[in-house]
Amino acid sequence: MATTAVLSRFGASDRAQLAADAGRLIERLRKHGGGPNGGVTRLVYSPEWQAAMADIEEWLLESGLAVRHDAVGSRFGRLQGESSSVVLSGSHTDSVKQGGAYDGTLGVVIAGCAIGWLARNMGKPARTLEVFANCEEESSRFASNFWGSRALTGRIAPGETDRLTDENGETIGSAMRACGLDPASIPSAHRKDLGAYVEPHIEQGPVLVESRDVIGVVDRVVGVRVIRVTLHGVSGHAGTVPMANRHDPLAGAAEIMSGAETIARRMGPPAVATVGSIAAKPGGFNQVPGEATFTVDFRHTDSDVLDGLERELRSLIDTVSARRGLQVRLGQVLSQAGIEFDGKVCAALEASCAESSVRWRRMPSHAGHDAQVIGTVCPAAMLFVPSQGGHSHRPDEHTELEDIGSGIEVLVRTLFRLAYQDS
Amino acid sequence: MATTAVLSRFGASDRAQLAADAGRLIERLRKHGGGPNGGVTRLVYSPEWQAAMADIEEWLLESGLAVRHDAVGSRFGRLQGESSSVVLSGSHTDSVKQGGAYDGTLGVVIAGCAIGWLARNMGKPARTLEVFANCEEESSRFASNFWGSRALTGRIAPGETDRLTDENGETIGSAMRACGLDPASIPSAHRKDLGAYVEPHIEQGPVLVESRDVIGVVDRVVGVRVIRVTLHGVSGHAGTVPMANRHDPLAGAAEIMSGAETIARRMGPPAVATVGSIAAKPGGFNQVPGEATFTVDFRHTDSDVLDGLERELRSLIDTVSARRGLQVRLGQVLSQAGIEFDGKVCAALEASCAESSVRWRRMPSHAGHDAQVIGTVCPAAMLFVPSQGGHSHRPDEHTELEDIGSGIEVLVRTLFRLAYQDS
Repeated sequence: MATTAVLSRFGASDRAQLAADAGRLIERLRKHGGGPNGGVTRLVYSPEWQAAMADIEEWLLESGLAVRHDAVGSRFGRLQGESSSVVLSGSHTDSVKQGGAYDGTLGVVIAGCAIGWLARNMGKPARTLEVFANCEEESSRFASNFWGSRALTGRIAPGETDRLTDENGETIGSAMRACGLDPASIPSAHRKDLGAYVEPHIEQGPVLVESRDVIGVVDRVVGVRVIRVTLHGVSGHAGTVPMANRHDPLAGAAEIMSGAETIARRMGPPAVATVGSIAAKPGGFNQVPGEATFTVDFRHTDSDVLDGLERELRSLIDTVSARRGLQVRLGQVLSQAGIEFDGKVCAALEASCAESSVRWRRMPSHAGHDAQVIGTVCPAAMLFVPSQGGHSHRPDEHTELEDIGSGIEVLVRTLFRLAYQDS
Repeated sequence: MATTAVLSRFGASDRAQLAADAGRLIERLRKHGGGPNGGVTRLVYSPEWQAAMADIEEWLLESGLAVRHDAVGSRFGRLQGESSSVVLSGSHTDSVKQGGAYDGTLGVVIAGCAIGWLARNMGKPARTLEVFANCEEESSRFASNFWGSRALTGRIAPGETDRLTDENGETIGSAMRACGLDPASIPSAHRKDLGAYVEPHIEQGPVLVESRDVIGVVDRVVGVRVIRVTLHGVSGHAGTVPMANRHDPLAGAAEIMSGAETIARRMGPPAVATVGSIAAKPGGFNQVPGEATFTVDFRHTDSDVLDGLERELRSLIDTVSARRGLQVRLGQVLSQAGIEFDGKVCAALEASCAESSVRWRRMPSHAGHDAQVIGTVCPAAMLFVPSQGGHSHRPDEHTELEDIGSGIEVLVRTLFRLAYQDS
């Protein structure tokens, strides 16, 4: 079947109808973990997460897809094709704490709407199509670091289920068992049948909004490293220890924080450096702290530049600590290599954008995504839709229905290319 | 009775015996709120505080003093004199979180040892002597700001018992009732019979240790102000928000923290500025914070200079916030005026130091103390003993027994001057 056949069948009314469906589904899913301010906290394996997953299963079944879950609880909605090679599309269902309704979830919803439309209108594909509702991506409950897509690609180490704990000390293995999942069967989630992966996602930044483009064809993801810095000094009384006698770790932290900001600004885009969390002990207003801990998250598309950024940060930490007489302990919270996505999948996305008559641009992703894990085992790329105000990981995350409709249309056409025209 | 009578009766064996008694008592009291590392957390009206107060009562009774408590739970051990004018001596019994065994408590112990010795050896004084075991000074559970000495001087406002809450939301009034104290009777704690106040206390700083002096005759207390700064910016994703688009309140906080340190260092001693507590929200390592809150504690002996320091800090906060597009909310946590102590009480302390043949020096206190409140209603001064390493508000607070013995001897001689020779 020629691409023009899809082009002619998928019209403005389909787009509007599917966008409206997607908008209703987003609001339906927001309830699972949604607070009074609209913010969503849906941590993996929590009751809210379980309720959202049950709702997603129901919706995928209503869309005429065959539904199953894997060993870590990710859900799949399958449209069987002639070949068993799978073109997978979707994103994650968990959220950060006090995040929004769109990050991750909108990707699942767009993929479900697109594959549902193809199932209803285009018949059996050459390659099998599957909606991917990934269990976990955010590391917001456990430092689980792409849990769902690591399960899919066989990258969860045996000891992790007992080692990863949440802030209450519960292991991820125990949390899985509470959801009826068996940690011992994680290896069964490893898939060998993936032919391609396309992940729709909100941009989470201001690029599309500021350029007035509607679709981002994402051809790479930045590398991310996060270090935890703990500085030990000498605690004391805020009045009685003269300034000259102090070894104040929080004053050292302030100097390092400002320095990290300066380094990233001087390096210029796409370098970023962020201190997102900080704590001082003992923490009384009238106590010179004895310990300060903070994280530095830094990112760049070029791994050599990222190495250089890390060297500069470590040197800054050493210099400040030595001058102030502080002891340093460094921990690596995260180290995610960047990725360049598949040229052919990007080309399919671009052709589909052109066919849909939407404004689009190629762009990198500055956030980490499942596609960078799954993209190491099969051709992959991503499709961004705009984030209103450039905001994400906040209760007021929003994407306009019209943009969601454009995203669905581009994905319908892309998946048609990959699953109906390729084989 | 002449001073020489005391001089001859109080010998080296008395000093050694009383120092040993004091050391044993410090260790006995350390158990009430003491943790495995020796650190003491004894918050006002907690079970640990109640146990310590019961123990102090028992010890004061054993010392032959008449014991009572006032409406806020402070304990008094009384040696009745010819006159009802009271020479009060002591300090507070509460601690900071994870503080040590000496701050406050040693002052109560030294006063108890001294007045006990006078009771046993010198008979009825002209003026009445009382040991003061103050319920609360540290503001470590409630922002109660010299609770015990404010009760004593009639400075607790009627609404405070319902307004001041701890971190669990319990009011100080409710915590009082749980200890069998009636908030409504607070006005009865206001004393009109105070003739003088002498507060022994650990120095909490390095001055005595570095100068090798044993006693500090404290002739003034620095003024203290503490402000809470809350900066509101725009939270977002640590990867997707370019550095140039950020309004990061924690980056602003870092700049202000460094600036506050620079201002205090440039101003020189005795100016100090301390950021003791800080928090960022939402607090994820991969989130640009939307809110940062921290405290700035700043002190100086000269109130005009303190005003200037405050102006500089406020101007710094305004400048940084305006440049970064942050909203500021400022709150006053504490504002304590400094005080110049009474010349006659200081002279009595100095004469007693000379008589005891100890090295001593006049010095200011850089920490706030009950004496600055009580000193507004009667002649007062303080007596410092050395803090090992210059440390306080830490588990390893320590004062050598020999120095404690010197402190007791100087106080015995001072109280003799004030209560037996004055009338």
